[in-house]
Amino acid sequence: MNRNELVQQIRSKKSYLCVGLDTDISKIPQHLLELEDPVFEFNKQIIDATSDLCVSYKINTAFYEAHGVKGWHSMEKTLHYIPDGLFTIADAKRGDIGNTSTQYANAFFKTLPFDSITVAPYMGKDSVKPFLEFEDKWTIVLGLTSNEGAFDFQTLNVGSEKLFETVLRKVSEWGSPNNLMFVVGATKAEQLAQIRQIVPDHFLLIPGVGTQGGSLQEVSKYGMNDDIGILVNVSRQVIYAGDDTFFAEKAREQALKLQSEMATYL
Amino acid sequence: MNRNELVQQIRSKKSYLCVGLDTDISKIPQHLLELEDPVFEFNKQIIDATSDLCVSYKINTAFYEAHGVKGWHSMEKTLHYIPDGLFTIADAKRGDIGNTSTQYANAFFKTLPFDSITVAPYMGKDSVKPFLEFEDKWTIVLGLTSNEGAFDFQTLNVGSEKLFETVLRKVSEWGSPNNLMFVVGATKAEQLAQIRQIVPDHFLLIPGVGTQGGSLQEVSKYGMNDDIGILVNVSRQVIYAGDDTFFAEKAREQALKLQSEMATYL
Repeated sequence: MNRNELVQQIRSKKSYLCVGLDTDISKIPQHLLELEDPVFEFNKQIIDATSDLCVSYKINTAFYEAHGVKGWHSMEKTLHYIPDGLFTIADAKRGDIGNTSTQYANAFFKTLPFDSITVAPYMGKDSVKPFLEFEDKWTIVLGLTSNEGAFDFQTLNVGSEKLFETVLRKVSEWGSPNNLMFVVGATKAEQLAQIRQIVPDHFLLIPGVGTQGGSLQEVSKYGMNDDIGILVNVSRQVIYAGDDTFFAEKAREQALKLQSEMATYL
Repeated sequence: MNRNELVQQIRSKKSYLCVGLDTDISKIPQHLLELEDPVFEFNKQIIDATSDLCVSYKINTAFYEAHGVKGWHSMEKTLHYIPDGLFTIADAKRGDIGNTSTQYANAFFKTLPFDSITVAPYMGKDSVKPFLEFEDKWTIVLGLTSNEGAFDFQTLNVGSEKLFETVLRKVSEWGSPNNLMFVVGATKAEQLAQIRQIVPDHFLLIPGVGTQGGSLQEVSKYGMNDDIGILVNVSRQVIYAGDDTFFAEKAREQALKLQSEMATYL
């Protein structure tokens, strides 16, 4: 998917919501556990209930890998079930030396045809570059994350700026706003204005609204640019809104609430 | 596997060699491609030919994920084929917020019973901690990697030291030398003496000897501690030593050469 298609979808749906499919088998409704692939069945119903309200789905690979071959299979089925036109994210946080990153890119851009993958920056340019070489695919590099551990290294002073600022600045030279995005946690919304000075044009993938405490209003205020430029991910607050046979309806209610609020900011 | 068992194995085999199973289907001998699972068949023969000469196998998850469900299956079979007593490493470079890292730990410590996993430090303490909570399992955190990109962020000045030194110092407080190791690239052997001042007791997993240019003699000289304390990984130089039906014998020759050299340093 290219940038124009993404922006157009956001404008027409009046939504920049990304629903995170962090599907944990211990948290899904009991009645699904009798089915052959409860994780896929859960995702399928969540997707059916929310795909007109969001523009993107983020599959958190950890929750699928936890089940080995079976989980990888559920991930594959889920990806193929997501309707055409929605922006798909492999939230995989990969990154390794060049020839290995190429293999990860093959895994998530070819074998599993995701539109994008999240990548950790610690190993530098040759670990990020292989992902950027795929046309119409996106690399989403970790900038400032939404967890407490973000303060361990990301906010250390490196010369006159913080490490995450150096990461944003350097990595933005390796790609363009047409194939590169950054993860910036909603829990640090007050820093978004500053971040926008470093990367004014790039899309930002913003986790941390909802369960982790970030404010949708604030991230929208400080994070948007002329092309909207943000995808706000919400996982648990949407997908676990209900825990009975009506879980998909409950998820839709939450997604609708978020989308309606987003519409007012657009 | 606990530390004593690992050290004893190193002393009895006179080897601290880790063979990296970065098995790339485009590089394995042609005659294997007719078999049902060429990747596993290749690994099986490599393991049969080298398991008395090395103490560890490192499975580079990217090369398996590149083949999706099928690759994950080859990885599972390979792991189960590795003889008991050898130290197994999932070279997966994972790391995410706490609840997600817990899922990765389940993936690589429970569903796939590896002894250890490599972890990226960028997301901080709560991204590393979940891996450290498994008894007799090891977390191997990236310190200073062997690629060119190591100079993009890892060697930046943070106060009076480099970022990778801060990473070593901080992360070493989160675990102990009994459940925590660090990746330090052989291509930076001259820095090993300095690194040993920060983490004197921890095992170091050292990639970069061989194809990437690091010297076995130097890493042994500067990296060893009283418990040996190093695992030297060699991948391509061993597994792709031959490209015909004698590939396993050729791999054995290379492994023997490395093990013989290691014996002289012990």
